[in-house]
Amino acid sequence: MITSARNPAVIAARKLARGQARARSGRFLVEGAQGLSEALAAGARPLTVFATPEAAGEHRELLAAAAAAGAEHRMVTAQLLADLAQTLTPQGLVAVVASVVRTIDQIDDPGGLAPAPSMVCVLAGVSDPGNAGTVLRAADAFGADALATTAGSVDLESPKAVRAAAGSLFHLPVIAGADWPRLAAALRDRGLLLIGADPHAEATVDEVPLERPCALVLGNEAHGLPDPVRADLHHLARLPQYGRAESLNLAAAAAVLLYACARRQRLVTGGQR
Amino acid sequence: MITSARNPAVIAARKLARGQARARSGRFLVEGAQGLSEALAAGARPLTVFATPEAAGEHRELLAAAAAAGAEHRMVTAQLLADLAQTLTPQGLVAVVASVVRTIDQIDDPGGLAPAPSMVCVLAGVSDPGNAGTVLRAADAFGADALATTAGSVDLESPKAVRAAAGSLFHLPVIAGADWPRLAAALRDRGLLLIGADPHAEATVDEVPLERPCALVLGNEAHGLPDPVRADLHHLARLPQYGRAESLNLAAAAAVLLYACARRQRLVTGGQR
Repeated sequence: MITSARNPAVIAARKLARGQARARSGRFLVEGAQGLSEALAAGARPLTVFATPEAAGEHRELLAAAAAAGAEHRMVTAQLLADLAQTLTPQGLVAVVASVVRTIDQIDDPGGLAPAPSMVCVLAGVSDPGNAGTVLRAADAFGADALATTAGSVDLESPKAVRAAAGSLFHLPVIAGADWPRLAAALRDRGLLLIGADPHAEATVDEVPLERPCALVLGNEAHGLPDPVRADLHHLARLPQYGRAESLNLAAAAAVLLYACARRQRLVTGGQR
Repeated sequence: MITSARNPAVIAARKLARGQARARSGRFLVEGAQGLSEALAAGARPLTVFATPEAAGEHRELLAAAAAAGAEHRMVTAQLLADLAQTLTPQGLVAVVASVVRTIDQIDDPGGLAPAPSMVCVLAGVSDPGNAGTVLRAADAFGADALATTAGSVDLESPKAVRAAAGSLFHLPVIAGADWPRLAAALRDRGLLLIGADPHAEATVDEVPLERPCALVLGNEAHGLPDPVRADLHHLARLPQYGRAESLNLAAAAAVLLYACARRQRLVTGGQR
């Protein structure tokens, strides 16, 4: 049982709350039994599982599965676990997992972006981890083939993003921190229309060809689509707004756009894509 | 210039972060120039405006408008303002404003719920203030006539909800903490179908009559629709989901549902409701 916050394994894990440490180590944190279970089901590689004695008792099978996948099991006090989890209601278990996101260099690898995708979501400069994770969850729910983020966008393996994604990080390929010109070329090569969300666009989502295979591109919460991204897009579209709100929350807008696209694609193909 | 955290006006304002103090005083906090400006435009009554000297210099006209509306202006240090605002990036200005939400007793009053609404959003047990505020913003964006919360739901005048609503609290009538049977009766009396969101419903949103005037009812993030609410609904509907996500984030699901309803109502009426 680890009881000291100065234990090297605890110190190393706690550092993974910071992007630099994640980038350097190629590891990130997954909280809770549900998260670890999704990670294992997706073939992700857990390296260490920290659990309180209570959680270890409750999740014996899960810990055995993690051990079989190569994870080291470390018992910790509830206080240390709460420090690691950074949530107000930690669930007694935090795992250090090998990074699951891919670089643009790996986009063609097995498990990367499919050769003929129907719908891809792109975050171009999104900065809030909660928003990014929520968009990933919506992309998963509406059947996106992949999600990509451009260089300078928030890290989807940050604890807040992982939490907001609620397991979806393990459900679809995520290409992270991509150089935009290379990403745009890869998406176009796969026959995707590049459609950007812009509240000031002339066309509404009903007026752009969402029924065709497309990449839906979302910009920064405050500044919208970066100019170099905007210049490469085939269409800009806005959501129809009937009331007085200045704009939708980014994650809400993304969910609506993904829904509208998935629905149109299935209406056109009679439920099959 | 107030410099002490023990100043009675500062102490009273800081207490408004808590629901009990808001309920007792009938006041809540609005952060930032944009928020205060929206409050004034909507005819809300500011009682006190706390501003740093820098913000006061930058927003002279706004402070004059607030004073004309009866607000007392108090200059505070940046440190005190940061304490009041509870955000990492306070904008130099926090206003104490008289509550703008209505009780179920005021639902028929002028400015309450219109006699023949097309779309109303109901939060039945939603507990996260960020979610509730984001739903209010989406309800505003998609032209809902009003939003209502049931007793036991989160307070839309809590600082986090006000921030997430981004001004929408001042754009449409909000009926708060309503007794469900009375609210349901008032909605039915206005000819609204009661349609609940439930990820386990048999019907999708395309299969329920969203084109008719309706109240869209959302339940708790973890527990869904409360049983007494569920029992009174005309229809349950789920969003079509094509991927592997267990469910959408509540605010994302609400945004999609509001969009789908607003769109169907306008398609049916040729853009006019």
